[in-house]
Amino acid sequence: MATTEQTILVGKKPTTNYIIATVMAFNAGTKRVILKARGAAISKAVAAAVMVRDRFLPGKVNIKEIKALSDKVQGQGGRERTVAAVEVVLEMA
Amino acid sequence: MATTEQTILVGKKPTTNYIIATVMAFNAGTKRVILKARGAAISKAVAAAVMVRDRFLPGKVNIKEIKALSDKVQGQGGRERTVAAVEVVLEMA
Repeated sequence: MATTEQTILVGKKPTTNYIIATVMAFNAGTKRVILKARGAAISKAVAAAVMVRDRFLPGKVNIKEIKALSDKVQGQGGRERTVAAVEVVLEMA
Repeated sequence: MATTEQTILVGKKPTTNYIIATVMAFNAGTKRVILKARGAAISKAVAAAVMVRDRFLPGKVNIKEIKALSDKVQGQGGRERTVAAVEVVLEMA
């Protein structure tokens, strides 16, 4: 049975990996995919979302919302620092 | 007289430069600032927007919307290629 929502963490892998994971989730019947990313991976999450919407599943998937957040991460020596993060919400049209 | 809207192109400079430009625009009376970025600069535009909202002008400025777009750029040898782009819309609360 297909889940209705899936979250994909976007990190250090090539953008293509996240595009494939997103397209596979939608093809498996998932209605909503959320790409989460922090710091430099934000560009990658947005690029993957745009590619899925405009090239891989055109007319089938929309970018519903892009939320911008502050996220706390443990830096070197245990010090907390704040980084920007996004949640890109993709939905079946 | 203050303009009601200002667009800032986010590129290769340090994130701090775009934060300062945004804060200065709001302090000068601008009601809406749009940060535009392409490719790897997308992360920088989002980080600058989050910093302005959460640290520099907390309670005063909201991120109204983040639009994700496909943009055409002239690559090497005059070939067109598509890159992802964003418009981060910041507004006075």
